[in-house]
Amino acid sequence: MSTLRYDVLGFGNAIVDVIARADDDFLVKHGMHKGGMALIDEARAEAIYEAMGPAVEISGGSAANTIAGVASFGARAGFVGKVRNDPLGQVFAHDIRAAGVDFDTPPAADGPSTARSYILVTPDGQRTMNTYLGAAQNLSIDDIHAETIASAAITYLEGYLWDPQNAKDAFLEAAAIAHDAHRLVALTLSDAFCVDRWREEFLGLMRAKTVDILFANEAELHSLYQTGDFDTALAALRQDASLAVVTRSEKGCVVVEREETVAVPAFPVDRVVDTTGAGDLFAAGFLFGVARGAEAAQAARLGALAAAEVIQHLGARPEASLKALAQENGLMP
Amino acid sequence: MSTLRYDVLGFGNAIVDVIARADDDFLVKHGMHKGGMALIDEARAEAIYEAMGPAVEISGGSAANTIAGVASFGARAGFVGKVRNDPLGQVFAHDIRAAGVDFDTPPAADGPSTARSYILVTPDGQRTMNTYLGAAQNLSIDDIHAETIASAAITYLEGYLWDPQNAKDAFLEAAAIAHDAHRLVALTLSDAFCVDRWREEFLGLMRAKTVDILFANEAELHSLYQTGDFDTALAALRQDASLAVVTRSEKGCVVVEREETVAVPAFPVDRVVDTTGAGDLFAAGFLFGVARGAEAAQAARLGALAAAEVIQHLGARPEASLKALAQENGLMP
Repeated sequence: MSTLRYDVLGFGNAIVDVIARADDDFLVKHGMHKGGMALIDEARAEAIYEAMGPAVEISGGSAANTIAGVASFGARAGFVGKVRNDPLGQVFAHDIRAAGVDFDTPPAADGPSTARSYILVTPDGQRTMNTYLGAAQNLSIDDIHAETIASAAITYLEGYLWDPQNAKDAFLEAAAIAHDAHRLVALTLSDAFCVDRWREEFLGLMRAKTVDILFANEAELHSLYQTGDFDTALAALRQDASLAVVTRSEKGCVVVEREETVAVPAFPVDRVVDTTGAGDLFAAGFLFGVARGAEAAQAARLGALAAAEVIQHLGARPEASLKALAQENGLMP
Repeated sequence: MSTLRYDVLGFGNAIVDVIARADDDFLVKHGMHKGGMALIDEARAEAIYEAMGPAVEISGGSAANTIAGVASFGARAGFVGKVRNDPLGQVFAHDIRAAGVDFDTPPAADGPSTARSYILVTPDGQRTMNTYLGAAQNLSIDDIHAETIASAAITYLEGYLWDPQNAKDAFLEAAAIAHDAHRLVALTLSDAFCVDRWREEFLGLMRAKTVDILFANEAELHSLYQTGDFDTALAALRQDASLAVVTRSEKGCVVVEREETVAVPAFPVDRVVDTTGAGDLFAAGFLFGVARGAEAAQAARLGALAAAEVIQHLGARPEASLKALAQENGLMP
């Protein structure tokens, strides 16, 4: 087994978020499903941008947010994802490196521009995402380095990578390398619509034990098992997953292991500003905890703490040091 | 006199802000003057960006922020400034148009890239700016349209335009056209260091009555008259300016007309998050009030309200409708 270089190495779409406030009427008028993520082409990206209000640009991407969170706990973290060598690609690379994350994937010299997600934040704090994948979909097997993966305690993959065929191939290759090196592989289901597109393949990954740790929110879990009943879905999950966490917003989360199910409450917050990144940051805390040998319930508490930090401000990456927050709350020495 | 098309038409540097948090040590280490604005070249821009933490990109520019604020009061507003036709230029154009502002200055097809200001926000809420002017310095007399200026009740100019020679020429031409059409010309002194660079020329503009309305903060006023004594500076200002407002942060502002001086208190705020844009937004409220025929003290109250909104969140443009806020506070019908 090679030397441990990373606590967590993440693979994901490298995306810059373009965030604006909008009312519910705007979503209806533009045919958007509130709270979901829709993949859009360049023409629709331009039409949405034209129609939306003044925006803020901030680096995003689900797994990238998670990895920035892992680094904020003081852990060693790396990210693999594809940008174009354009100004927004430079923004993405700057921000993730400035967060303390190793990011060495070479940018594309030509082809589509860096991925953007046009995110509308409604007054209730929910976010509705419209993602133009651009350069991110060209993440490929050439961007996979076996030695790096073998040196990470956990390799973390986002379900969104299942959409572009090249990225899917890279995903499977990375998972195989990790397991060959006796490391753990974690997956987030990303989005209920993503699950709907790839249900059978995701279930196949779980049953084949390609995935050791699974993250899902309630909507994703219901989509996975095509049931509206939480307990039915949870029972099915217990059969398929080695270790899984189902996040339930203000109701906290449920950690599912074969033998036991543990509910962990959400961390109290003063005011929800923007829920973008809540699931991503929960995963950050949980993965950090597991990588450092914490029990699942303790890891879930670290996840709840990180999620609470990120929903109290605009943007999907932590502004405060999660390490300091965890220490203040007695969750880390 | 032509038909009134705009309440306020602003000329300024078209800049995208790149905002990050930093501690005081960072400023010292990089030789920055806290609270000031330094002009930097491309090499220093790259070095600062490399060193600074994860950032947020958001459209800025002093006069552009002011004009976005004017539009937020429900007024008719236009902006003139130069971007390059690159992704950050598109961001600037989108954001100011989405704020309800007319922006028709054609982007540069080549030459330096869109201007950026690297802004470090310290824990005390102060901002320290490092501005790479790029394409903005190529604003020129060709971008001036006499008919548009003649159709604006107030033409508003930022002192920063005095730095690039082309923009200075455009500034003087715009002021001349406005006065020929019997409109008002307003100027902000922008920054104490800017005043230090152009003291005699700014005093000349005031004494020649090229400027009808002057905005300054305390540091700029002290720099203008090279005195540390507020009352001495104020007495000098009374001689030179037709109408001037001196903003004093939490102490409110002082409106100076030849005959009288009126102090108007600051608007109370719960929590200062980021003072970026406070002066810009004060100018927005004041100019809106004057354009709509309010007395100076009443216009200053509108300014204080707008400044209070913008310092309670990150970024230098209003997030809430200033019209609605003014109505809630009984400052507008």
